[in-house]
Amino acid sequence: MSKAFRRASGLALAALLLAAPAAAQSGNQDVSKIDDAQLIKRANQLFDPIPTEPPELDGNKVTPERVQLGKMLFFDPRLSASHAISCNSCHQMGLGGDDNQPTSIGHGWQRGPRNAPTVFNAVFNTAQFWDGRAEDLEEQAKGPVQASVEMANTPERAVKTLKSMPAYVARFKAAFPDSDDPVTFDNMAKALEAFQATLLTPNSRFDLYLKGHEAALSPKQKRGLQEFMSTGCVGCHNGVNLGGQGYYPFGLIEKPGADVLPRDDRGRFQVTKTASDEYVFRAAPLRNIAITQPYFHSGKVWSLENAVALMGLSQLGQDLSEQEVDEITAFLQSLTGEQPRVEYPVLPESTNETPLPVEFEEAPSKR
Amino acid sequence: MSKAFRRASGLALAALLLAAPAAAQSGNQDVSKIDDAQLIKRANQLFDPIPTEPPELDGNKVTPERVQLGKMLFFDPRLSASHAISCNSCHQMGLGGDDNQPTSIGHGWQRGPRNAPTVFNAVFNTAQFWDGRAEDLEEQAKGPVQASVEMANTPERAVKTLKSMPAYVARFKAAFPDSDDPVTFDNMAKALEAFQATLLTPNSRFDLYLKGHEAALSPKQKRGLQEFMSTGCVGCHNGVNLGGQGYYPFGLIEKPGADVLPRDDRGRFQVTKTASDEYVFRAAPLRNIAITQPYFHSGKVWSLENAVALMGLSQLGQDLSEQEVDEITAFLQSLTGEQPRVEYPVLPESTNETPLPVEFEEAPSKR
Repeated sequence: MSKAFRRASGLALAALLLAAPAAAQSGNQDVSKIDDAQLIKRANQLFDPIPTEPPELDGNKVTPERVQLGKMLFFDPRLSASHAISCNSCHQMGLGGDDNQPTSIGHGWQRGPRNAPTVFNAVFNTAQFWDGRAEDLEEQAKGPVQASVEMANTPERAVKTLKSMPAYVARFKAAFPDSDDPVTFDNMAKALEAFQATLLTPNSRFDLYLKGHEAALSPKQKRGLQEFMSTGCVGCHNGVNLGGQGYYPFGLIEKPGADVLPRDDRGRFQVTKTASDEYVFRAAPLRNIAITQPYFHSGKVWSLENAVALMGLSQLGQDLSEQEVDEITAFLQSLTGEQPRVEYPVLPESTNETPLPVEFEEAPSKR
Repeated sequence: MSKAFRRASGLALAALLLAAPAAAQSGNQDVSKIDDAQLIKRANQLFDPIPTEPPELDGNKVTPERVQLGKMLFFDPRLSASHAISCNSCHQMGLGGDDNQPTSIGHGWQRGPRNAPTVFNAVFNTAQFWDGRAEDLEEQAKGPVQASVEMANTPERAVKTLKSMPAYVARFKAAFPDSDDPVTFDNMAKALEAFQATLLTPNSRFDLYLKGHEAALSPKQKRGLQEFMSTGCVGCHNGVNLGGQGYYPFGLIEKPGADVLPRDDRGRFQVTKTASDEYVFRAAPLRNIAITQPYFHSGKVWSLENAVALMGLSQLGQDLSEQEVDEITAFLQSLTGEQPRVEYPVLPESTNETPLPVEFEEAPSKR
């Protein structure tokens, strides 16, 4: 219901903007013609800056204890069956919160089915995964740990691993003081959600512009912003994350080739089994998009310029000029914010009770 | 020559210590009989504490610019052919500087031939790798980047990758101001060495004891220290890293089974082609040994107690009692120092000129 509303409103918004003043529709006007005050005012009706503090979470508390525990869990490869893959393997703190891979390499060097989304600002998405199958980051966190092509672990082994290390047990107790049995798979997910809620990238050039700093964007970026709004990109890419809110068919106007839109991945249909959801995906959030290539759920497009041109054709039926593509790309580059400063956590010591990587579970010399 | 000397001196030292006062040879004496002043004095003749500052490097300078660049390179998976493996994949900052794997998982999920050693305090080892085939960390750094079972890259692709990112070019210029062509494979290795030289773990309980803090070790640990010296462990495991200096046959007295000493890995013989170097390895440095299991070059022994018992038999011909094993293990646990505090580096953005992971080099949509 609320999602249907978001989608409808998104399309209505797009229609509204397609009727925007002609002046704003040309990418060719002289920079001197840009009215910053008006552009900032219109932009603020459609977008919000990234806050510097995490939001309130539904059913979870972002306490320092949960954030610190969540950070340790995020970096701990012993949550995977091989003890070789952690959350950070595919959502790297130094690469914009993803892995710059078409699809991630997981257990046994298997490739996952879809491009790994960035964890930065993900807390602001209406739901998680490309098909929105997880309501929030807490529910999402349980997926990769168990996915056979990702960390390939079981909740039982993950909990047994955590309980084998006194330092983890103590941190779970501190993070979940009201719980009689704090070390659980659910609390692991809660701690991971709390940590990820702190992974925000505020103060991008665009956010500074939204806040009234007229010099924060270059003239080229300002023209790109105007085109982003006037061509209708903003119909799906709006709000704080410029996306991540609604669900739309990939190929609303023209379906991309099977190289970019593999026919065997029918997107949200696999969640809702509703015909109208075939090849429907959650609109990609565009925060830090310039540093999270390659693009789309298939991860098949490596350059941002090509991604912009393809979106113009497939979603808007517009063959954007090279200048428009370059200007919109320049605007998108202004969405790269201050990256989170994360001190690498020192992880608890394994003990003789810590389960070994699955490949070595039968090791004879384990005491 | 110098290595031959080190080895000879090591054995002489062992002989000397086997003739240590009888009082120090029994693991059963009452704690009240421990003379801390005497024990600290003897220990200081054999060991040195880990310093808090990196040492001078031969042919390299530990400047802030080189350390910061080296840290970025250490965490950058784009130095691997797959863009999925970084130095930190097998030498993790949160796991004692290694990966807690028997042997590491590398390119294509291949397992390497030998256990990954910790990078922490590695700068104090006389040479790098289990067989000492790299003279220092600069020479060592070039190995894994190219090894087909590790990062599987070529120097040419690595340099092309680094040169494709302006932020890297600027940092190489700052780190190597006197170089006309700063972005080279050699300078990459120099920066990695400079960063690793800062990965020190000072102020372990043992180091505090060496410095005269009598309460830093428990009575059990003090008995373990006495036994470590009196039984002859110290013959090979002495100096600042309690090892890492000399080369010794694994199985000096009694060869371990092929499960622990695979017959097809003849150790240093593969470097020197000298018969006397068959199954000879560099004595493992014991700093942080309690958090860097599993043990030995084969990584087949998971518990520190089992490793201690096996060393007693294979290197000293002594069937250590369970109490002696427990006390020596307790002493070894006192070698865990303060772990390095490392802020995760924000890596330079890939550009349209950055080579793609080898699997995707032919990607059609790359601009």
